[in-house]
Amino acid sequence: MNSTLQFIGEIHSPLKSLDQCPLQENEQAPGAELEIFAAFSKGIRDIKPGSEILLLTWLHQADRSVVECVPRREYDSPAVGVFSTRSPDRPNPIGVHKVKVVSSDNNLIRVEALEVLDKTPIVDIKPVWNE
Amino acid sequence: MNSTLQFIGEIHSPLKSLDQCPLQENEQAPGAELEIFAAFSKGIRDIKPGSEILLLTWLHQADRSVVECVPRREYDSPAVGVFSTRSPDRPNPIGVHKVKVVSSDNNLIRVEALEVLDKTPIVDIKPVWNE
Repeated sequence: MNSTLQFIGEIHSPLKSLDQCPLQENEQAPGAELEIFAAFSKGIRDIKPGSEILLLTWLHQADRSVVECVPRREYDSPAVGVFSTRSPDRPNPIGVHKVKVVSSDNNLIRVEALEVLDKTPIVDIKPVWNE
Repeated sequence: MNSTLQFIGEIHSPLKSLDQCPLQENEQAPGAELEIFAAFSKGIRDIKPGSEILLLTWLHQADRSVVECVPRREYDSPAVGVFSTRSPDRPNPIGVHKVKVVSSDNNLIRVEALEVLDKTPIVDIKPVWNE
């Protein structure tokens, strides 16, 4: 099977560059809009306002050659294996974000706090699993 | 940026075909072994036994043309948008699994209950976020 991603949409966010990004969703990230491309918009018709979704993105500015890294803003720390971190720089830079839906209408989903750059491609949306 | 996935490893599981798969991890799925390819094995060196990890897989037998679907084993139900389901058949069939690490050694991670077919490619491993 072909292992090239087909993007289903794109993020619209006030975050325009990496230096504007908070470290995690809970550090005052702004809300964002998920634009779903026409070919996939039927796929979001049952997403309800107030629900939580798991959003998968393609962190398109990442460095895919990274296997070990130093935690962000801890430059004196020893390097750690990248798969023990949430660094965007990794072999397959897929972001996994748990976000709350504010509204959903046709091909647009508006969500609360999301730490993702403007124009980031959307890979998938899933329900949040039960704990 | 190139949007083709580079697989970092492969699952070894006693589940050899889809009809052997339980519906969710909590339905008696067997343990599995994650083999990490040599180019990426340094990336797992800090993964600790007893910890939980978020495992991303490429569900290589999926149908990528699906935008709406009928829930599995509920064939009389109306179709729903695929992004409200965890169906493996979806435009980008990335599995997201929360699994517990039994042991980690060089390029092998052994995990508890995992509902994934033998030979499924591994896309990424991340820490489980704090709730």
